[in-house]
Amino acid sequence: MNPRYEQLLARLRQVSDLSKAAAVLAWDEQTYMPTGGARARADQQATLSRLIHSLFTSPEVGELLDQLAEDVRDLPPDSDEAAVVRLARRQYDQAVKLPADLVEALSRASSEGFNAWIEARRSNDFAVFRPKLERLVELQRQKADALGWRDRRYDALLDLFEPGMKTADVERTFSILRDQLVPLLGAIRERLDAVDDSVLRRGYPADQQWEFTVELLEAIGFDFKRGRQDRSEHPFTIAFSVDDVRITTRINEEYLAQSIFSTIHEAGHAFYELGQPRQHERTPLCSPASLALHESQSRLWENVIGRSRGFWEHFLPRLSRRFPAQLADVDVDRFYRAVNRVEPSFIRTEADEVTYNLHIFLRFELEQAMLDGDLQVADLPGAWNEKMQAYLGVTPPDMLRGVLQDVHWSGDSFGYFPTYSLGTILAVQFYEKAVADHPDLPEQIRRGQFETLHRWLGENIHRHGARYEPAELVQRVTGTGLDAGPYIRYIRAKYGEIYGI
Amino acid sequence: MNPRYEQLLARLRQVSDLSKAAAVLAWDEQTYMPTGGARARADQQATLSRLIHSLFTSPEVGELLDQLAEDVRDLPPDSDEAAVVRLARRQYDQAVKLPADLVEALSRASSEGFNAWIEARRSNDFAVFRPKLERLVELQRQKADALGWRDRRYDALLDLFEPGMKTADVERTFSILRDQLVPLLGAIRERLDAVDDSVLRRGYPADQQWEFTVELLEAIGFDFKRGRQDRSEHPFTIAFSVDDVRITTRINEEYLAQSIFSTIHEAGHAFYELGQPRQHERTPLCSPASLALHESQSRLWENVIGRSRGFWEHFLPRLSRRFPAQLADVDVDRFYRAVNRVEPSFIRTEADEVTYNLHIFLRFELEQAMLDGDLQVADLPGAWNEKMQAYLGVTPPDMLRGVLQDVHWSGDSFGYFPTYSLGTILAVQFYEKAVADHPDLPEQIRRGQFETLHRWLGENIHRHGARYEPAELVQRVTGTGLDAGPYIRYIRAKYGEIYGI
Repeated sequence: MNPRYEQLLARLRQVSDLSKAAAVLAWDEQTYMPTGGARARADQQATLSRLIHSLFTSPEVGELLDQLAEDVRDLPPDSDEAAVVRLARRQYDQAVKLPADLVEALSRASSEGFNAWIEARRSNDFAVFRPKLERLVELQRQKADALGWRDRRYDALLDLFEPGMKTADVERTFSILRDQLVPLLGAIRERLDAVDDSVLRRGYPADQQWEFTVELLEAIGFDFKRGRQDRSEHPFTIAFSVDDVRITTRINEEYLAQSIFSTIHEAGHAFYELGQPRQHERTPLCSPASLALHESQSRLWENVIGRSRGFWEHFLPRLSRRFPAQLADVDVDRFYRAVNRVEPSFIRTEADEVTYNLHIFLRFELEQAMLDGDLQVADLPGAWNEKMQAYLGVTPPDMLRGVLQDVHWSGDSFGYFPTYSLGTILAVQFYEKAVADHPDLPEQIRRGQFETLHRWLGENIHRHGARYEPAELVQRVTGTGLDAGPYIRYIRAKYGEIYGI
Repeated sequence: MNPRYEQLLARLRQVSDLSKAAAVLAWDEQTYMPTGGARARADQQATLSRLIHSLFTSPEVGELLDQLAEDVRDLPPDSDEAAVVRLARRQYDQAVKLPADLVEALSRASSEGFNAWIEARRSNDFAVFRPKLERLVELQRQKADALGWRDRRYDALLDLFEPGMKTADVERTFSILRDQLVPLLGAIRERLDAVDDSVLRRGYPADQQWEFTVELLEAIGFDFKRGRQDRSEHPFTIAFSVDDVRITTRINEEYLAQSIFSTIHEAGHAFYELGQPRQHERTPLCSPASLALHESQSRLWENVIGRSRGFWEHFLPRLSRRFPAQLADVDVDRFYRAVNRVEPSFIRTEADEVTYNLHIFLRFELEQAMLDGDLQVADLPGAWNEKMQAYLGVTPPDMLRGVLQDVHWSGDSFGYFPTYSLGTILAVQFYEKAVADHPDLPEQIRRGQFETLHRWLGENIHRHGARYEPAELVQRVTGTGLDAGPYIRYIRAKYGEIYGI
């Protein structure tokens, strides 16, 4: 093997190991760490970040990458070596483009921004967060400019989460969606009472909910020898290796859907991580292709599978066995309708399939406007509420259920939101293709059999890791590229039936 | 402040942060990690170790330490700066004395040794472990020689765990103890039936045991905002900072004493870590003085306090409330005698106060003999059984309950065992001194009040961190230095009364 490539791999492995160590620390922070641990943990994470950055951006790595560009020139671009070099180059260029001062300033502003956001939420007062957000927007602008962009400043940030995706592409797709979803929601709004989800609010003890989520995970193929589930305030998935992927869930005794769908959602993320190509572990090739691809997996499991009638034909009897008092009188149809109830609401993370994307469009537009200087931070709460009224027909009663609800802008996640909607669209495209390849898939799911689906996702998506650019991967899988059509048809058919439209 | 000192501190902080990160990974390994995580976790830990070693042993650190030796020459040796420089120098010298090849070989041999030990235990076959142990003994010999020694090769290894302590000192102390304990055990052996511990074996459900250990921890002053307890196969304590100290316990439904005393033991370790001088955090000064000092704290809480009659006068009613069926007919005297039952047994970690040290003497003698080449590894099982017969009057029925029971020799912990007995002795010396300073301490404990004891331990021992050499610290606290006398008097009085000797 090329000795320069070996040298590169050695450094990449070191960086990967340290990043995974940082991930373990982050997982502990959100699951088990006592409050007293926070102060020192921040130091430990900062030291790890600085080391990772300095190991990865050292001049030797740059030289190696320069030389390797020559070495791999004649290799097929999707060969292992060419792909690793390309991915490392991309990450290296991003890392070195950001001056150390800016990285440091962003890190400090994020940490201050997060604390101010917490405090602003506590006092329901945007003014507490405002100066920190102004600073963060300014730094995000500097960051975008340091990374470089041509058409739109937002492109530079979006590209960090969704390699190759342009703001204009997102806008095109979102505008198609918006034109369909807003009138559909209008029609549903006339018939909101057609669906009743009170069966989910009959009081479900936490311990039995927990046990059901574990049964569910086992039944849909989550291997507890290669991962685990814990509880946390905000559910998340995190991978320490291809054989150790952790998810968390949140339990609400007053609302059964919370734990069930957050568990299925995170399991979808986990399956993607568990399916990464282990032979490339500790290289950037053994990594999901993008955040939209990641979200496509969680949404596919949570919504397309988990909120389908067939799924509950199999699982409702199992759920009823754990909650006989609450569910004895509930049949599949009633349960299916309950878990698919549409309601224009204030909180994105609690939104149904029809309204979810509207929450995203609003954020995508607002963060762009701030970045471009077209919207002042001081005017953000007003702009938020206007758009909520325009898209969803509701006005948040307070900041907590309005502009202060998401953590993203308090940290370093500008440009992240669109990936949620892109993933939602891809989820339906992928599932349609899987059904085209295996027409009895819905019937298998009705029987609680998921092996075919796992195999299809593994072969078509997971095993490629980051070998292909997201757009190329989507093209290979679907034959068409990103297309909102299937998603729109799916939503129309499903909710047309449920609401009799 | 001296800029060189600042530079040293910056490097020490980095090393400390990475070591704590490695500690979090180790904690996770033993508490929550799924089996699939082991392979990648080994890589992550190896990368962290190598980085820590290379950051700490870089030539700049050596130069800094050389210059700082001049800078601190006129400072009092126990001043902050002088102490930090001295401790860093000591660790640096140890680290650089070991050639990288030897460190690497030891690491590999330890990992292979551990696996072979597990396998040997599974098959109850010493031959599986033997070649690995031979290799480890050979490497320990090289390690001792690389570190350097004058009188005894064992000195070099002992000093890693117990700075300043010599093999000859240990032998002197152990020989006094042995001369007293062996005849005492002989006398007790005649009356073994005088104590019945069947009340501890009445079947205690794990959940209630867990809840009692939590109640106990809160009652003796463990702050769950600055730590937590989890379950693990082998109980341990680990500190991620002065404000995040984790302990684990093990529950045996068939034997109530297991969880209770392992919880109190680990709490004693935890109190020491929680009492370290926070103003020196991320330097070697904010660290327990030695392993014997550490063990003195756990043994003081577990045995001197936790197995005292007064302690159970307070806690037995609380325990009985959780286990009314099992404990309704049990009074304090019966419970006190049960938790202090003496029995010559095979397993060190299950041994009572009288026999515990005999298990240590045997290991201390055998590891020395192997290191000096006076005992071949092939002859170890026979030598083990002979000494068991001589000291304890029993012969292990198999290797699992004999020479294969401890993990230490399968890894890099030669020279560690004596610290257990030294800690046991110190525990009694410290408690005697605390009672001399506060004569009503036993009465406070009878009332479940531990503040005075915590304050005394904090002021006299914990807050000093590693500022003094262990021997100096012991001298300052006790006024006499290490002395087996108090321990012997304590054992004679306590067990004389229990067994009517």
